[in-house]
Amino acid sequence: MNIPTPPKNRAFGAPTGVTNGPIIGSRKIYVPTPQDASIRVPFREVLLSTDAEPAVRIYDPSGPFTETDAKIDLNAGLPQPRRDWLKGRGFDSVPGRAVTAADNGNISADHLVPACPAERPVLMARSRQMATQYEFARAGIVTAEMIYVAHRENLGRAAMLEGARERHADGESFGASIPEFVTPEFVRDEIARGRAIIPANINHPELEPMAIGRNFLVKVNANIGNSAVTSGAAEEVEKLVWAIRWGADTVMDLSTGRNIHNIRSWILRNSPVPIGTVPIYQALEKVGGDPIRLDWEVFKDTLIEQAEQGVDYFTIHAGVRLPYVPLTANRVTGIVSRGGSIMARWCLAHHKESFLYERFDEICEIMRAYDVSFSLGDGLRPGSIADANDRAQFAELETLGELTKIAWEKGCQVMIEGPGHVPMHKIKENMDKQLRECGEAPFYTLGPLTTDIAPGYDHITSGIGAAMIGWYGCAMLCYVTPKEHLGLPDRDDVKTGVITYRIAAHAADLAKGHPAAKIRDDALSRARFDFRWEDQFNLALDPDTARSFHDETLPKDAHKVAHFCSMCGPKFCSMKITQDLRAEVLAMSDNERANLEALAAEGMVAKSKEFLDKGASIYLPAAE
Amino acid sequence: MNIPTPPKNRAFGAPTGVTNGPIIGSRKIYVPTPQDASIRVPFREVLLSTDAEPAVRIYDPSGPFTETDAKIDLNAGLPQPRRDWLKGRGFDSVPGRAVTAADNGNISADHLVPACPAERPVLMARSRQMATQYEFARAGIVTAEMIYVAHRENLGRAAMLEGARERHADGESFGASIPEFVTPEFVRDEIARGRAIIPANINHPELEPMAIGRNFLVKVNANIGNSAVTSGAAEEVEKLVWAIRWGADTVMDLSTGRNIHNIRSWILRNSPVPIGTVPIYQALEKVGGDPIRLDWEVFKDTLIEQAEQGVDYFTIHAGVRLPYVPLTANRVTGIVSRGGSIMARWCLAHHKESFLYERFDEICEIMRAYDVSFSLGDGLRPGSIADANDRAQFAELETLGELTKIAWEKGCQVMIEGPGHVPMHKIKENMDKQLRECGEAPFYTLGPLTTDIAPGYDHITSGIGAAMIGWYGCAMLCYVTPKEHLGLPDRDDVKTGVITYRIAAHAADLAKGHPAAKIRDDALSRARFDFRWEDQFNLALDPDTARSFHDETLPKDAHKVAHFCSMCGPKFCSMKITQDLRAEVLAMSDNERANLEALAAEGMVAKSKEFLDKGASIYLPAAE
Repeated sequence: MNIPTPPKNRAFGAPTGVTNGPIIGSRKIYVPTPQDASIRVPFREVLLSTDAEPAVRIYDPSGPFTETDAKIDLNAGLPQPRRDWLKGRGFDSVPGRAVTAADNGNISADHLVPACPAERPVLMARSRQMATQYEFARAGIVTAEMIYVAHRENLGRAAMLEGARERHADGESFGASIPEFVTPEFVRDEIARGRAIIPANINHPELEPMAIGRNFLVKVNANIGNSAVTSGAAEEVEKLVWAIRWGADTVMDLSTGRNIHNIRSWILRNSPVPIGTVPIYQALEKVGGDPIRLDWEVFKDTLIEQAEQGVDYFTIHAGVRLPYVPLTANRVTGIVSRGGSIMARWCLAHHKESFLYERFDEICEIMRAYDVSFSLGDGLRPGSIADANDRAQFAELETLGELTKIAWEKGCQVMIEGPGHVPMHKIKENMDKQLRECGEAPFYTLGPLTTDIAPGYDHITSGIGAAMIGWYGCAMLCYVTPKEHLGLPDRDDVKTGVITYRIAAHAADLAKGHPAAKIRDDALSRARFDFRWEDQFNLALDPDTARSFHDETLPKDAHKVAHFCSMCGPKFCSMKITQDLRAEVLAMSDNERANLEALAAEGMVAKSKEFLDKGASIYLPAAE
Repeated sequence: MNIPTPPKNRAFGAPTGVTNGPIIGSRKIYVPTPQDASIRVPFREVLLSTDAEPAVRIYDPSGPFTETDAKIDLNAGLPQPRRDWLKGRGFDSVPGRAVTAADNGNISADHLVPACPAERPVLMARSRQMATQYEFARAGIVTAEMIYVAHRENLGRAAMLEGARERHADGESFGASIPEFVTPEFVRDEIARGRAIIPANINHPELEPMAIGRNFLVKVNANIGNSAVTSGAAEEVEKLVWAIRWGADTVMDLSTGRNIHNIRSWILRNSPVPIGTVPIYQALEKVGGDPIRLDWEVFKDTLIEQAEQGVDYFTIHAGVRLPYVPLTANRVTGIVSRGGSIMARWCLAHHKESFLYERFDEICEIMRAYDVSFSLGDGLRPGSIADANDRAQFAELETLGELTKIAWEKGCQVMIEGPGHVPMHKIKENMDKQLRECGEAPFYTLGPLTTDIAPGYDHITSGIGAAMIGWYGCAMLCYVTPKEHLGLPDRDDVKTGVITYRIAAHAADLAKGHPAAKIRDDALSRARFDFRWEDQFNLALDPDTARSFHDETLPKDAHKVAHFCSMCGPKFCSMKITQDLRAEVLAMSDNERANLEALAAEGMVAKSKEFLDKGASIYLPAAE
């Protein structure tokens, strides 16, 4: 892989390069869909060193950056797989809102990051013109995005179902409806029911569409974003590319510093994954950081600004209502959501109901016109084990359920954000209540963290909760990095967070009985048993780390084909012994095997008899 | 903390120093038990920077090494808290088995690690003389070990139950019987029922007793051990001390190389935690590494050798029976347990039932005479998701249930080892079946790993499964390090493994509703909300990492009392906003609060009305 030279003192310059090249041991392929050959879906294919097994096809959100000879021009932006589809829908190209100095935090000219020069028309739907995937789905129309997603989700299933000796998957899905085979019509139906979304702003033609829903693969979100003092466009674009390289399915830009309008332009024009934001953060910057000075106009202006840029989903904390604020007063950790605390501050200072709640209809109308999906924010999520599942949290969730139905009425796609800090025994209640209150709209949770006592390791405390809630039905898991609660994640932290959450999401897919999930586990396990070290590394979520850990003890190339490893050494290898055993057992006659079976029964009887012969006394004389 | 200089080219010398000194921000205390003031139980106490809260008492397996002025003399061995208790039981002091050259792998004199010079009498129970904690418990006798364990497990509960505004714990324990307050009689009763063990060889006077059982805190085991080519006594003792420093409750010495008898002497004389081993490993060394040459005599000799040294529990793979071997032939990963594959090899080569199974009575008699606990090994545990919960695994588990009852009849303490690789939806079946088959004997599992696709991160794939099975009732979790499947763990890997498993164990305790578990979470969360950074670090499982992560972005001492952190900066801090809000809400009159409640109801109604007024049409005209 090619890693760009870290920029020096270039926080305010344009980005010039990003990490690119294939993940080691695999290659990018684009596969035309059966429904439409012009729709080509990306996968990553791991080629194995044995002829006895097919290449393993892996879901791949990493975009063109991982092509073999990736030609990346950040100034031009990525190729636009959606351009022609969007053209066909006849949206108006509008002049667009004029960029103001406030959009970039009124930064001085010498510190202003230039905007990405890639030009795109600004599209907007007319009123009554169908714009959102939800509207198309409800009208019975299968969009190109739905075809794309069906093929993408379906990876390997068809082949597997043909060749399988047995049904691979045997999970417990808690009432999900995961199909054996994903069709575009299934995708449409899930979206029409509100059970899935395809976050896909009509101003984000570079997007490679993906679905978030309980009956699809569990997805992972990674957060990036600059803060008041740190990082510019180059760092943020690199974080984006780095996060999706390791498997982030969507990325949220949580920038709160200056230059955020222009940094966002670099991110969007170079992102193949949906980008989410929290518009209230930028709105707050526009009013000098004082929550009390926020109002509907500045918020609305920010929604339009970001929708025109192509942001695919907005976190909207419309469930933080004035009357709920007192419910947080006796909490151990109060309100820990930034958006939640901002709105609570506003409500209490003005003694008014939240303008996000009051103006929810108008928010819907704006978001519908660009197909920006809702991510209804959980501003009152618990920030500690002590506050989990309390009245404040659930009151807000009930309101989110109410708002979900309104957003659907308005034609919008909706998902719901969830906690936070929740001990294991209270996780399922969150999932069940969310499904019930929100009409099965996709749930999108942060962790949850299953204990508060491990700052520095909260990717793990939360990875446990994430795997479980993914199993129970959560559609997307927002990653937590090791730096959570302590500082801003660096490059390594981003990778650790993404890999941890890919583990959680995959463990959830396996447990739900997703028909394609087990293919990779089985391929890797067979490689392990056959001592195909290279295949084992390449099939791993992180081939680089797997290989380097192995090489710490056994660096030579010869050891990559050795039938042992450093744990037990050559003499002591259980897998080597077992391989020999297998050959012997497979060579047994049926008679021999039957004899062994008989022995099993006999041995059991003999043991029991001996046991009974000695009676029930506890203290027997020791043998001499 | 004081870290010894890493030994250079001293693999064959005696160890001279180990890491010692307190964990930062806390101090070691010894508290006399109410029943017997001469029994003094160690805890770690975290002192807080506020007078408003009491110090937090933490369970502490780290031994004398973390005393403030630790005086550690590895040659003399640790203090012996059990010496007088054992004296009072009148065991015979026997000459002991003569050490042979084979015990250290027939190593040449210049490569021989000297034995630890600390001298201890070799004790052995006469036949019919009560020796084991199980025998005492069944006879209604409360031992000093039981008093010690009761006080140790009970940390903080009494105080908490007095002062608590509300019942802190509200877990789901799946049928466990966790008491509000642990008494010595409760400990005795649990041991008598076979539901808990105190692994405590009568030749391990240095031991600080601890309990393993479903109704006690979930415990963590760490594995250490040299291999054919690497590491000597200094490294292994340092790994032991390092593992218990971070919270390992027991340590298994899985050495397979040479010098293992003498290295083990250093480990045992300097271990305050129970030491477990897999005797078949050393027996195999004694027969030159060829499983087929194993026999009962060499195995028996090894049991006695290790029991005399003071090993507290033995993994015995007596459930790997000849007729079960063919059941593994079609597995994806065959037999992955070393002990399991050795015994399978032996059975098949001789076409005989396993001598461990045939001689199980005699094994019990030997182990009883020293109170070595059984850890009945799961030699046929699944090594991949594909093999989880298969017939081979469960056939062995049924046999382990049968053997558990025999071991109890013989007066022995017993726990049962479990898998391995298991997807989430199959974990609970493992726990339920184990409880049923093995009469509630404590379960002790390796992970389980919930997916196979993340070599390099298997502490996480398995930490997820470990937390879940701990919640379901597993009594002890065997750690997995990031190097699993790839190489031998180094010092950092050992720490990462232990911390990950402490997270899993603690998350399980919280979810089970352990009455004392939440104290630490709440104290840390209050510190977090109050911006008491130092308290937050010191209450963390790993204060060093928490502090260093924070200091990467905000290194100044002043930032340790700052009311913000690097994630959001001073303007944007949700916790700061929330603290102000809380003050306002708490200052509200009852009337004001009631008004807000009314507003909540009213808002909900208004929204619903508006929704209904607009009818059921999906496509509404957008607002102008």
